Amino acid sequence: MNEWAKRTWGDLELIRSRNPLIHNITNFVVMNSTANTLLCLGASPVMAHCLEEVEEMVSYARALVLNIGTLTPVWVEAMIKAGKKANTKGIPVILDPVGAGATRLRTRSAQKILTEVKIAIIRGNSAEILALAGSKVNIRGVDSLQDPEDASDTACKLACELDTVLAITGAVDIVTDGSDVHRIANGHQLMTRVTGTGCAATVVVASFAAVCHDHLRAAVEGLACFGLAGEIAGRSAGGPGSFQMKLLDALSSIDETMLASGVKVDP
Amino acid sequence: MNEWAKRTWGDLELIRSRNPLIHNITNFVVMNSTANTLLCLGASPVMAHCLEEVEEMVSYARALVLNIGTLTPVWVEAMIKAGKKANTKGIPVILDPVGAGATRLRTRSAQKILTEVKIAIIRGNSAEILALAGSKVNIRGVDSLQDPEDASDTACKLACELDTVLAITGAVDIVTDGSDVHRIANGHQLMTRVTGTGCAATVVVASFAAVCHDHLRAAVEGLACFGLAGEIAGRSAGGPGSFQMKLLDALSSIDETMLASGVKVDP
Amino acid sequence: MNEWAKRTWGDLELIRSRNPLIHNITNFVVMNSTANTLLCLGASPVMAHCLEEVEEMVSYARALVLNIGTLTPVWVEAMIKAGKKANTKGIPVILDPVGAGATRLRTRSAQKILTEVKIAIIRGNSAEILALAGSKVNIRGVDSLQDPEDASDTACKLACELDTVLAITGAVDIVTDGSDVHRIANGHQLMTRVTGTGCAATVVVASFAAVCHDHLRAAVEGLACFGLAGEIAGRSAGGPGSFQMKLLDALSSIDETMLASGVKVDP
Repeated sequence: MNEWAKRTWGDLELIRSRNPLIHNITNFVVMNSTANTLLCLGASPVMAHCLEEVEEMVSYARALVLNIGTLTPVWVEAMIKAGKKANTKGIPVILDPVGAGATRLRTRSAQKILTEVKIAIIRGNSAEILALAGSKVNIRGVDSLQDPEDASDTACKLACELDTVLAITGAVDIVTDGSDVHRIANGHQLMTRVTGTGCAATVVVASFAAVCHDHLRAAVEGLACFGLAGEIAGRSAGGPGSFQMKLLDALSSIDETMLASGVKVDP
Repeated sequence: MNEWAKRTWGDLELIRSRNPLIHNITNFVVMNSTANTLLCLGASPVMAHCLEEVEEMVSYARALVLNIGTLTPVWVEAMIKAGKKANTKGIPVILDPVGAGATRLRTRSAQKILTEVKIAIIRGNSAEILALAGSKVNIRGVDSLQDPEDASDTACKLACELDTVLAITGAVDIVTDGSDVHRIANGHQLMTRVTGTGCAATVVVASFAAVCHDHLRAAVEGLACFGLAGEIAGRSAGGPGSFQMKLLDALSSIDETMLASGVKVDP
Repeated sequence: MNEWAKRTWGDLELIRSRNPLIHNITNFVVMNSTANTLLCLGASPVMAHCLEEVEEMVSYARALVLNIGTLTPVWVEAMIKAGKKANTKGIPVILDPVGAGATRLRTRSAQKILTEVKIAIIRGNSAEILALAGSKVNIRGVDSLQDPEDASDTACKLACELDTVLAITGAVDIVTDGSDVHRIANGHQLMTRVTGTGCAATVVVASFAAVCHDHLRAAVEGLACFGLAGEIAGRSAGGPGSFQMKLLDALSSIDETMLASGVKVDP
């Protein structure tokens, strides 16, 4: 079994045995699918965005996910409040900058969060990551029209600058902490035809970060595991509708053998 | 056919023939799945939380569901406004205290609703019910780490004190009005792996309360019916994703024969 | 192949090749299912409701959908702001007056939007359309208890008065611009048992309007295409749960042959 498959399996077993609480402040579109993704993986989701409770809720969590889709200023305020509390407690914060680059509000909100909160991992598409670095980007709504490779160099610089891990998803995913760069070739074309698969990848990465202090490793493992579940689901799906359902089934049933033969991480 | 199966079938037929309007002020995670649960059962869902319309909307409803997941103060205000109106019109109000015990905001909000609105049935997990009674609880986000039996005595006292029916769901559900106690052994393990099944149980109970003035009976019937649908779905599900889909199919196709052979209520 | 099947196929091919961005300001219940409907059809969905970004976001879109389910005044304000911007850019605006007639807030909000924004197409059920015209209506929550034919005459007058296209869905859909009237007999009974199929029909119509300047034609094509997908899904569905999944699969796989043999538009 390759090294990454072994590591991924070990941490997946930890998620399944510990059921880490993952606190999500996320968008309206994916709240349900995100919660189900976490449950299928073995984690325990909670959604809470109210200023009056986010600090208390995050205190019990093992990871915090901040996702700026369908954002408003008060939600961003809650994200920052929860993020700061997570920082003081050593709880990893994972940022999903949905639609950064699509509107100034989204780009600025993501940048504001990055200024005020120490982020462990940023998971986005190539356009979103480039937008965080201040580059001009090619984005249609929340869908990148660029390849992860286009953002590769920028991502390395940005990872160093922010002292964080960047996970850029696309046909081949790229994960970097600024010095090491890993590419994950798992995934399936139908993942682009179901809403919220990017957001789902983010919460899977967050779950691995909840049990693995090495955030570079957590991001690689999370994307490999999620991408492989996509491949398994894709084999028998009749379209995006059945794919969405089978993706959840695959996530819940993925095992050591599937990982051993399926994980494609380089190097 | 046992007595409970017969009663459940009779009231399910009423739901299917009358299509009662169920007004939901509920959380963002489960709005879609809750609406589909109600439609599959034969009821007619409406979601409306705006202060300017809740009183008017609830006036046309046969039951009102208040669910405090993803709450904010203004939503709680709308819940109380709608609840008071429902009280004046004799429309049963069902409370789902999602996450009571997890944060002070949730515990207090649930208690505030109980102070200001006459609640017909409270449906929660054991930790949430214990939290309402002021007990210390063991909860991970919105998932109870305790068994319904742990809350059984407290529930009886609380039901008397509040003059309401308590429905505590878990491996074996407990329903009590403070004097009678019923246990429902229907259900399936996969129900814990899909988000919002607790919330779905609540709206099923609300639908039975919409056609049956005996709230103790409505709660028992609702949980038996929903739990049995879960068992039917679980027989052929390949995981949580397909289970969720099959649960809706099962709810819409459940019939007299299935109830007769499947309902497990004691006594 | 009949003329409408040919036209529908031509425009569906355009949607699939251009992936038009559809900006939705819509309700919490259907955000996820609406986004998936658009992705399955070949369009690109974005949900954004924040006053600070709606004008910028809609500028990149090919159609704007305003849906007043789960409305609040600030959301209606965002709808009007986005709608006015769309008007100045020549982007078609499609209105879904969910629950107009059910509460005064909903009726007035829909009418306010119609006063301030030039709407290309209104897609609603018969009760909602009648409510817009100021008629007394028979509605249960958001479900019409009336047939599209009941609203046919009123719709023609209203279409002229507002210089818009009205698309009334029901067992047989009616589309009119005030002079021409088309009836679409596609669809399946199970569409009434899944939440948000009306909202989904609206975004399908919006996608056709994004590639076809003739809004009457776009509405007919969209409803024929969506209704036919419903028929295809209905053939093998085991209930509303599996129907919902199969409807997405059908939308993504619908082709020229299916349209040729299935589209039922009169005249």
